[in-house]
Amino acid sequence: MQEPGYLYSLEFAVRDYECDIQGVVNNANYQHYLEHARHEYLISKGISFARLHEEGLDLIVIRADIEYKYPLKSLDRFLVTVNVQREGNIRIVFLQEIFRLPDMKPVVRARITGAATKNGKPVYPGEVIKKLGLE
Amino acid sequence: MQEPGYLYSLEFAVRDYECDIQGVVNNANYQHYLEHARHEYLISKGISFARLHEEGLDLIVIRADIEYKYPLKSLDRFLVTVNVQREGNIRIVFLQEIFRLPDMKPVVRARITGAATKNGKPVYPGEVIKKLGLE
Amino acid sequence: MQEPGYLYSLEFAVRDYECDIQGVVNNANYQHYLEHARHEYLISKGISFARLHEEGLDLIVIRADIEYKYPLKSLDRFLVTVNVQREGNIRIVFLQEIFRLPDMKPVVRARITGAATKNGKPVYPGEVIKKLGLE
Amino acid sequence: MQEPGYLYSLEFAVRDYECDIQGVVNNANYQHYLEHARHEYLISKGISFARLHEEGLDLIVIRADIEYKYPLKSLDRFLVTVNVQREGNIRIVFLQEIFRLPDMKPVVRARITGAATKNGKPVYPGEVIKKLGLE
Repeated sequence: MQEPGYLYSLEFAVRDYECDIQGVVNNANYQHYLEHARHEYLISKGISFARLHEEGLDLIVIRADIEYKYPLKSLDRFLVTVNVQREGNIRIVFLQEIFRLPDMKPVVRARITGAATKNGKPVYPGEVIKKLGLE
Repeated sequence: MQEPGYLYSLEFAVRDYECDIQGVVNNANYQHYLEHARHEYLISKGISFARLHEEGLDLIVIRADIEYKYPLKSLDRFLVTVNVQREGNIRIVFLQEIFRLPDMKPVVRARITGAATKNGKPVYPGEVIKKLGLE
Repeated sequence: MQEPGYLYSLEFAVRDYECDIQGVVNNANYQHYLEHARHEYLISKGISFARLHEEGLDLIVIRADIEYKYPLKSLDRFLVTVNVQREGNIRIVFLQEIFRLPDMKPVVRARITGAATKNGKPVYPGEVIKKLGLE
Repeated sequence: MQEPGYLYSLEFAVRDYECDIQGVVNNANYQHYLEHARHEYLISKGISFARLHEEGLDLIVIRADIEYKYPLKSLDRFLVTVNVQREGNIRIVFLQEIFRLPDMKPVVRARITGAATKNGKPVYPGEVIKKLGLE
C-alpha cells in the first residue's frame, strides 16, 4: 500500500497488551510499530534484516527522535509511513509518521537514523543503499 | 543509589527476552529502561505514576530524543541515570544516560520531554513540580 | 475470516522485535498473539475488553496451558484460531491454535481458562456468556 | 538468594510498562519473569542460554502450564522461585512460583517443560543435565 507523499505505509491495529495503565499505547511500543514498518519496507525492497544479520551485516539504529502528538487507544487502527534519505556516506535516515485511521489524526512523527556494522565496525552498506535507490 | 552528577540512578541486568535476532537489546527496550528509572525516581520523590493516573492526572512523554552509542548484550549489567529540569512553565525534561557496568561504557544518551494532562488537556503539574524541587 | 472448525481466526505476520537471540519468536509473545486473537474475537461479538474494564468488569486469565510445537521465525505469517466453551458456571475456556502459513504447520496449541471479576471478586459474566452464545 | 524449599529465587519489582489497561501486570509478562529467573538460575550453574545458542545448542520450552492466582500491580515487589527435575531422558521440568513481597501471597504457579535442540533436532543436553545435578 502506498500513500501519496510516502514511499511505503503499513496498517496496524492496536493490540490491548500494548496499552498501559493510562489506557493508551505505551511509548516504547511506537518504536516497535516504526521498526516493523521499516522492516516490512526493507523486505518490499528485497532486504531482510534477519537474513543480513546471518550474513554478518547488522543494520542498527544510532539515533531516534520521536515526537508524540496524540495517543493511540484500544480498538484504534493506524497507519505507519516510511520515507528514506541518505545522510552523508554512511547514514540512512527514515522519516516516519503514524496517523490514526480513518481520520488521519497525527499520532507520532519520528526521525530514525540508521547505520550498518560488520562485526561491530561501521561499514558502507552498498547493497542496501542500492536496493533503496539512494545511490 | 546516587552517582556523582546524577540525581538518581538505578541498576539493571539485561534479560534475555529483551535481546533480539542480532543478539543485542532491541532499541525499544531502552525506552522501557529509561521509563522504569524515571518512575522509580518519581517514587523516590513521593510521586506514583499509577496513583496520579487514578487521580486523573497523567504524566506523558511528548518527545524522546535517544542516541544509541553502544549495544547491551545478554549478561550485561547497566546503570540508568536521571537528571531533571524544567522547560518553560509546563514541560519537564529528563536527561538520562545508560552506562554498561562495571566499565561505565556509554550505551544510551536520552532527552525525554514530559508534560501533564488532565482528561486529555495540558495542565500545570504543580504538585509534581514542587515534589521534584523544580519551582 | 473463519476457518473450518474454528469460530474465529486472525492472520498475523511475525515482527522482528518479537524474535529473540535464538532467531525465533520468544515464548511469551505467543501469549500476546493468543490474547490479541481472543480480544478481536470478543470485539467481533460486540465485547470490548477495554470498555468492560471501564465499566468495572475485568475478564481475566486464570490458567494458561500452552504446547509449543514448532517455532515461528522472522518473515513467517501465521493464523491464530479461537474456539470457546463454558466450564461450569463461571469459567470460559478458549481453545486456541497457531498455524504457520501457508503450510498450516502446527505451531502452538493452547487452552486458556478465563473468568470474570468485579472489584477483584469473581462474578458470573452474564452479558459476555450471552453474547458468546454459551448460555 | 535461596529460599527454603527452592533451589533458586530472584527478586523483582513490577515495571509500570508491564501493566496493562486493567492496571495489573499483563499475563504474558509473567512468562518473562519466569524465563528471566530460569536463565539467572542457569547462569548461577555456569550455563549461559545465549552462549549455548552461539555453540548451536538451543534450550527451548515445549510446554508451559501457568496458573494465575493473584495479580501483581504497579509498585509491587515479588519473588520468582525455581525448582528443577528431569522427566524421562530428554526433558527438564522447571517448577516455578511467584510470590508477592513481603507477604508471600501466591501470584503464579507454573510448570515449564524444556528440551534441547541442535539445528532444530532434539538432543540429549548432557552438559546441562550434569551442571544442574540431574544425572
